[in-house]
Amino acid sequence: LIQQAIRRVLLCLVLLLTACSDPVNNALPSWADGQVKTAVLAYVDSVTRPQSPAFLPSSERIAVVDHDGTLWAERPVYFQTYMIYEQVVNQAPDHIDWHTEQPFMAVLSNDQDYLDAHGYAAMRTLSAAVTEGMTTGAYMSLSQQFAENSVHPERQVAFSNLTYLPMRELVNYLHQNDFQVFIVSGGDIGFIRGFSEQFYGIPRERVIGSSRRNVLSQDATSVLRGAQFASMNVNTMKVLNIDLHIGRLPVFAVGNSDGDLAMLAYTAKNGGFALVLEHDDAVREYSYREGASGVLEAAVENDWPVVSMRDDFLQIFKTSD
Amino acid sequence: LIQQAIRRVLLCLVLLLTACSDPVNNALPSWADGQVKTAVLAYVDSVTRPQSPAFLPSSERIAVVDHDGTLWAERPVYFQTYMIYEQVVNQAPDHIDWHTEQPFMAVLSNDQDYLDAHGYAAMRTLSAAVTEGMTTGAYMSLSQQFAENSVHPERQVAFSNLTYLPMRELVNYLHQNDFQVFIVSGGDIGFIRGFSEQFYGIPRERVIGSSRRNVLSQDATSVLRGAQFASMNVNTMKVLNIDLHIGRLPVFAVGNSDGDLAMLAYTAKNGGFALVLEHDDAVREYSYREGASGVLEAAVENDWPVVSMRDDFLQIFKTSD
Repeated sequence: LIQQAIRRVLLCLVLLLTACSDPVNNALPSWADGQVKTAVLAYVDSVTRPQSPAFLPSSERIAVVDHDGTLWAERPVYFQTYMIYEQVVNQAPDHIDWHTEQPFMAVLSNDQDYLDAHGYAAMRTLSAAVTEGMTTGAYMSLSQQFAENSVHPERQVAFSNLTYLPMRELVNYLHQNDFQVFIVSGGDIGFIRGFSEQFYGIPRERVIGSSRRNVLSQDATSVLRGAQFASMNVNTMKVLNIDLHIGRLPVFAVGNSDGDLAMLAYTAKNGGFALVLEHDDAVREYSYREGASGVLEAAVENDWPVVSMRDDFLQIFKTSD
Repeated sequence: LIQQAIRRVLLCLVLLLTACSDPVNNALPSWADGQVKTAVLAYVDSVTRPQSPAFLPSSERIAVVDHDGTLWAERPVYFQTYMIYEQVVNQAPDHIDWHTEQPFMAVLSNDQDYLDAHGYAAMRTLSAAVTEGMTTGAYMSLSQQFAENSVHPERQVAFSNLTYLPMRELVNYLHQNDFQVFIVSGGDIGFIRGFSEQFYGIPRERVIGSSRRNVLSQDATSVLRGAQFASMNVNTMKVLNIDLHIGRLPVFAVGNSDGDLAMLAYTAKNGGFALVLEHDDAVREYSYREGASGVLEAAVENDWPVVSMRDDFLQIFKTSD
């Protein structure tokens, strides 16, 4: 009982310190002062200040944030691709036929031309082949290892170091303001769950992604990945899955590609805040409008703030974890 | 700035009071002292006491709880059925054909024999007819109204008063011990979300249920209910959806029917606590083993504690909300 009392007192102190530290002054240090940063701060203030007409109770402070190209880089290909390639190489000794069969052969012989030409179709085949039957737990561990330790082929740094520092600050800032931040990604739900807590402080249950038709193992102890997609979480499916997993309207949405347009429009049309990242920094990151022209046009049309990664981010990448 | 400081001080005081009230002494007042209550308290103690070898950080304290027959009654039929009947009656003026077409005619003429004979098939038709195209938001409002205000035909009390007081206490007790409690129900996900926060303090994003193939509205502002099921959340699908929505192993599971068996076994086989409610109180509630014999046998076989509603619950129903 005394121990319990001591624990309660300690808990009280921790809560006091947490509640009494001031999260506002140091918000978004890697964001340049300017219209976009001001708009973000003003919006968050408007829904968190109790006297504000737009005030929202914390239960309704729902943020939805895309992953590839929004929380970390996505070039030259989605990083999940590299994990699948690694698995093809690792599992090849058990699959002698892969050495003479496409698209496996292309990965094993590093035939980038073939892989570029067959793009997404090749990826679907590879991904199903190397992950079907794997437990969802094992898949998450794999992705955690990958994101922490594997190295981006062009940049020669761990993938974890290709997360965007200003976006990590934004997620923290939203958390400090009692938002629930959900990742809503076209990437595999288990892939992102492997590192979402460690990188972004976003718990697994707040990750929404593409998913497979999984099955329960014979002994009922684990869930095994299926080969077919249950849900490809892009475009309107992002909105449908937000409704399925959260059951509330998001009030804050961030994305960077046309696959985020439905989610951004859904948020904005219901009175929320939509924010678009523009990849316009060829020096520090990448510069491209491919797959993003629709969302960039919609941003202009609807007055959604656009983050220029070149101008609005003082630093782009988190340098170490 | 002064206002902000005052708010912070007030927040601190609230947190202090919350953290320092003792949740243990008054835990589960409507549960009779005995083996089951002792087992529940001992399990929760074992995963929350930091010195315990079974200690779990709060992120891993995941509880999954069935709804019909576990958090509220389910007799003579699942209560969701009554909401659908009400909607048939309310919408009938716009559907003149329903007066001469089954199963609508049976509802409108109160032909219980027909409805009993056609059971689930009739229900699927009715449910799709009255809710297809409805926004998920409107459907939730409907269910909130229904659960608060509509009256159980046999018992003549509001459905809210047919929630189980001891189970509400258990959910509170788990919340006080930093569990995330998810409802995992065969019922419609939106139906339960309509009242989960109000009745159980369980936020909508912690409700997992059966869902439809919904669509985004033309103007991209809302999600419209489809007629076909996307997921029937029973048996093994409960486990697959737990993995999809939460991405963690549950450590505490409660159910009452064979449709909960997979979820209970999954929890127990991974080292968690499985608890089964037995409906054995014909005087205060209902007494039946129909649809539950498998789970009751499994409980005996695997040494899962079984709650006798007759003996372990001092009071069964919450009397008012």
